[in-house]
Amino acid sequence: MKIAAFQMQSVLGDIEANLRKIEAAAERAAAQGAKLLVAPELALTGYGAGDRFPSLASPRDGAGPQGVSEIARRNGLAIVAGFAEADGSTVYNSALLTDGRGQTSIYRKSHLYGPYERQWFCPEDPKAVLAVVEGVKLGLLICYDVEFPENVRRLAKAGVDLVVVPTALPTGWSGQFIAEHMIRVRAFENQVFVAYINHCGQDENFSYAGLSRIAAPDGSLLAEAPANDEALIFAKIDPPAFEKSRSENTYLSDLC
Amino acid sequence: MKIAAFQMQSVLGDIEANLRKIEAAAERAAAQGAKLLVAPELALTGYGAGDRFPSLASPRDGAGPQGVSEIARRNGLAIVAGFAEADGSTVYNSALLTDGRGQTSIYRKSHLYGPYERQWFCPEDPKAVLAVVEGVKLGLLICYDVEFPENVRRLAKAGVDLVVVPTALPTGWSGQFIAEHMIRVRAFENQVFVAYINHCGQDENFSYAGLSRIAAPDGSLLAEAPANDEALIFAKIDPPAFEKSRSENTYLSDLC
Repeated sequence: MKIAAFQMQSVLGDIEANLRKIEAAAERAAAQGAKLLVAPELALTGYGAGDRFPSLASPRDGAGPQGVSEIARRNGLAIVAGFAEADGSTVYNSALLTDGRGQTSIYRKSHLYGPYERQWFCPEDPKAVLAVVEGVKLGLLICYDVEFPENVRRLAKAGVDLVVVPTALPTGWSGQFIAEHMIRVRAFENQVFVAYINHCGQDENFSYAGLSRIAAPDGSLLAEAPANDEALIFAKIDPPAFEKSRSENTYLSDLC
Repeated sequence: MKIAAFQMQSVLGDIEANLRKIEAAAERAAAQGAKLLVAPELALTGYGAGDRFPSLASPRDGAGPQGVSEIARRNGLAIVAGFAEADGSTVYNSALLTDGRGQTSIYRKSHLYGPYERQWFCPEDPKAVLAVVEGVKLGLLICYDVEFPENVRRLAKAGVDLVVVPTALPTGWSGQFIAEHMIRVRAFENQVFVAYINHCGQDENFSYAGLSRIAAPDGSLLAEAPANDEALIFAKIDPPAFEKSRSENTYLSDLC
């Protein structure tokens, strides 16, 4: 299964503009044979929307998520994209997975980072939200979630092949470290694929590290985006190709 | 607290020869002000001793461990060194921590790797064996144990500043990956120091990756040894120097 990761500079607060960006990426991804397109955390609103989140948030069947599902259907692929989800008066930092055929799943971020996120979002209890795309079993996390090994382990124990992680990783030492080292280790220590898709550029509140990447079960990088620019990167998710790595690194069966 | 890590080529099956090597390293370490010296997994016997382990194994107060304690006392520092521990007819892959003043602790490896280790050793249930050296709270793991994030997390939750890991990491892709990426991530994701001390060279059964390293809570490397040669490397373990990193990367308090 070929996936496409869209390292994106969201237009802050402009869901229509961001849907147009995602549609353009979906057209390119589909033309290259991708069956899944991934956009960053809060791709529909931008991550730095701050006090606009309460008004930008939409229910899971609202215009923004429905727009993503329509893009998926028109282009014949699945899409994962972050959005601000309103459930009554509660707002979650969520990711929509839409398969392009009318089926959708929602994952809500469980581990919120810092006072900014905690001001605008409610955390959800950690959950394994799973789906199958073209025979590949995938699970969802958002940004800070993946920095906790417990969260990736939970998905690996549930049998996923691929962990999909929309993110909004800032520039700086820690961001660089997470992109350069941690994502590969999360893949290796669970012998799964990890697709980690970031914003780039800056908005009025944050500056983003770019460096989106797709890591394989043996810790190697299948694709990586630059630090500064929008990019559409591709990788083939082929679990049987890493059978040797899984047979040598038997973490899941050896865990006491 | 200054620590010294002795990347060592053990003499296979010759405990006396390995005690002499450790004593020479302890003299150099003490002369440079180190308060803790760390030698690799099964440093006293060599890792590749295979069918000689049953006869080489000694009780925790046997000649080998006592020899290490005497070296520690003579040189005025603490020492961690791996040895094959006999407890009745059961043999464990253990690490001795001796403080040079008559206090010792024993950690037994909980996660054995592959059929070779499982043939010769019995695993112990995962345990947090803790000690304080010069005000630094440390915990012990051995080799494969550290590749499981659960084991380092257990020690971090118990409040350690430093995780000490004697190891016997082989050459090859996975070994290189563990040394280059995983050790730093274990430090970062728990905001602790990790000292990971390997063998080098080869014996009749294995070839070792070297690449011993000491990582700081922010994921940076304080010291690293080369791939191929014996080396004595030093680092200052100064938890307050990483207060900023801990305040930005609040994994332990944010874990759901």
